[in-house]
Amino acid sequence: MFTSFSIQAPLTAKDSELQQKIDNKTKPLGSLGSLEKLAFQLGHIQQTTSPEVSKPKMIVFAADHGVVAQGISLFPQEVTPQMVMNFLQGGAAVSVFCQQHNVPLRVVDVGVNAELGTHPLLGSRKVAFSSQDFSQQAAMTSEQLAQAIQAGVDEANLAIEEGVNLLMFGEMGIGNTCVSSCMMAALMGVSPEDSAGPGTGLNATGVSHKAKIIEQSLARAERDTGLPMAQWSAQTLAEQVGGFEILAMAGAMLQSAQRQTAFVVDGFICTVALLFAQKVAPNVVAYAVFSHQSNEKAHTQLLAHFGAMPILSLGLRLGEGSGAILAYPLIQSACVFLNKMASFDSAGVTEAKGD
Amino acid sequence: MFTSFSIQAPLTAKDSELQQKIDNKTKPLGSLGSLEKLAFQLGHIQQTTSPEVSKPKMIVFAADHGVVAQGISLFPQEVTPQMVMNFLQGGAAVSVFCQQHNVPLRVVDVGVNAELGTHPLLGSRKVAFSSQDFSQQAAMTSEQLAQAIQAGVDEANLAIEEGVNLLMFGEMGIGNTCVSSCMMAALMGVSPEDSAGPGTGLNATGVSHKAKIIEQSLARAERDTGLPMAQWSAQTLAEQVGGFEILAMAGAMLQSAQRQTAFVVDGFICTVALLFAQKVAPNVVAYAVFSHQSNEKAHTQLLAHFGAMPILSLGLRLGEGSGAILAYPLIQSACVFLNKMASFDSAGVTEAKGD
Repeated sequence: MFTSFSIQAPLTAKDSELQQKIDNKTKPLGSLGSLEKLAFQLGHIQQTTSPEVSKPKMIVFAADHGVVAQGISLFPQEVTPQMVMNFLQGGAAVSVFCQQHNVPLRVVDVGVNAELGTHPLLGSRKVAFSSQDFSQQAAMTSEQLAQAIQAGVDEANLAIEEGVNLLMFGEMGIGNTCVSSCMMAALMGVSPEDSAGPGTGLNATGVSHKAKIIEQSLARAERDTGLPMAQWSAQTLAEQVGGFEILAMAGAMLQSAQRQTAFVVDGFICTVALLFAQKVAPNVVAYAVFSHQSNEKAHTQLLAHFGAMPILSLGLRLGEGSGAILAYPLIQSACVFLNKMASFDSAGVTEAKGD
Repeated sequence: MFTSFSIQAPLTAKDSELQQKIDNKTKPLGSLGSLEKLAFQLGHIQQTTSPEVSKPKMIVFAADHGVVAQGISLFPQEVTPQMVMNFLQGGAAVSVFCQQHNVPLRVVDVGVNAELGTHPLLGSRKVAFSSQDFSQQAAMTSEQLAQAIQAGVDEANLAIEEGVNLLMFGEMGIGNTCVSSCMMAALMGVSPEDSAGPGTGLNATGVSHKAKIIEQSLARAERDTGLPMAQWSAQTLAEQVGGFEILAMAGAMLQSAQRQTAFVVDGFICTVALLFAQKVAPNVVAYAVFSHQSNEKAHTQLLAHFGAMPILSLGLRLGEGSGAILAYPLIQSACVFLNKMASFDSAGVTEAKGD
């Protein structure tokens, strides 16, 4: 299923020229901090000393999750289609921030438990009306998994063929923090207590119930597959405890990387999608720009796994790609300083003495 | 000199309506993290549930410092006018970021050691060609201090009369990290070892030399005034160890607050200007939006003093207002979500169950 991805790490041919260009700008050496690292990464990915993120696109994947039957979210499942309508009508956080930055928003239904009709901003790639309750049985069939991955691949291809040079991903799906915590526990071998958090606002009792459901689900899947989870393939893991929108994001990330296009990772759920994509093809990580540190506690551990220093740390825990779009102007700023600032030479500014 | 400022804390009349509006947006409670606090602060300052930062302005104050004769900076003094020209020609970091966000930039000469001529973006309010070397004598006369403060007041008035609803301040002046560290030591009673840092890139020997110059300067000023620095008035402190652009920023902050206008604090030097303004009129702090955590180590202590959680933490140490302008789109986002997001009611989205 995943053999079609063969992702290359970006070449290093332009790296020293790129660093020299950054260092010759009229500023003390290194004084733009992590914007300099970001400019370097974008140039490295795009193999140029003049990277551009002038044509961004936000794609929000939406789906429902059978496991909500276990009472793991504060919000009822009907909120997923309600929020999709809110995205389409322009009233959600990701909608208003995309408008603010003139970034086109597309919402892709890969498994919402409702008929959504048609809308110019809506992509219809429904795999099923929700996944199965993975505390009781596998979340999806292998055909469904393939469809979810393909939905992401197709969306990435569509965007890149439109000329998009920066992909941003977001998600909507009541219960998907629980699904992500479960996937993280299986992928990294951490305990459900460590991977589960409040999501949209559970209290301590709610979080502990969620962790218990995750533990039971993983035990159920180990019994059904006859394999300890450390031995699961990416395919098995996804079928057993995956979610459609998370896997679609992973597919989109993999295809984005395959086509040497930078993509922006949002918060916890999106970072779990990257963790899954990394299991499929480790080089995918080189193309990921980490936008923010979420307030969901397990995100800290995930970011440490990637050695990532995200751009923002605003205590966000909203999902939808909201952190990615909020970081967009700073990603743009990384290109702006590299492409537009004067050099010491061009501005006739005296350089620092060595000290 | 400072008796003309009588700054009122913003009224609290709209606060509960404002918080209710924030809480009713279609998102889990509190999930926009510090953007929610920022939206609240802006509404609180503007006394409205629909705050606007639609007409921002960046004012960069520039001046030179006699203390550079003591070898406390990596860059020679000629870089101050060179960088002012770079600002005016659009090649500096603050210039390109202001262009990115369509924010008008104005550069105000309050003490650059060169004739700068005229330019549409340049305000000419030169107090002197540089301050005096405060390791040897007072940095300025009381007339010069009054002029520097007035330059800031006049610039704030000019902007507010243009309809500006968010002021951003930056600075340029070779040696002004040293001046700021000296002012901080005098204002907070911390040791020069704790308030001095690398500035534009000094090594450990350079930082230790800088701390020694600060220590000598403060001792010189205590002798000359016959008073321990803990007993200095704001006026004495500024005359003895101030810098023109730092005091002009303080004047602009005070006037901005007096006219109930929010202003954005950049990094270390700008935060020291706020610390000085606070000594003059404590309520000024309520109008300050902290844009970023600088890489200059003493900034951490300063931010703790204000109980501030700045918007960005990018490891910047460039000054010029660069952190303020980089944070601007996020300040805008705080207003955007408050003014444009749907409420649970208006979008027909089901609210969370209590847990």
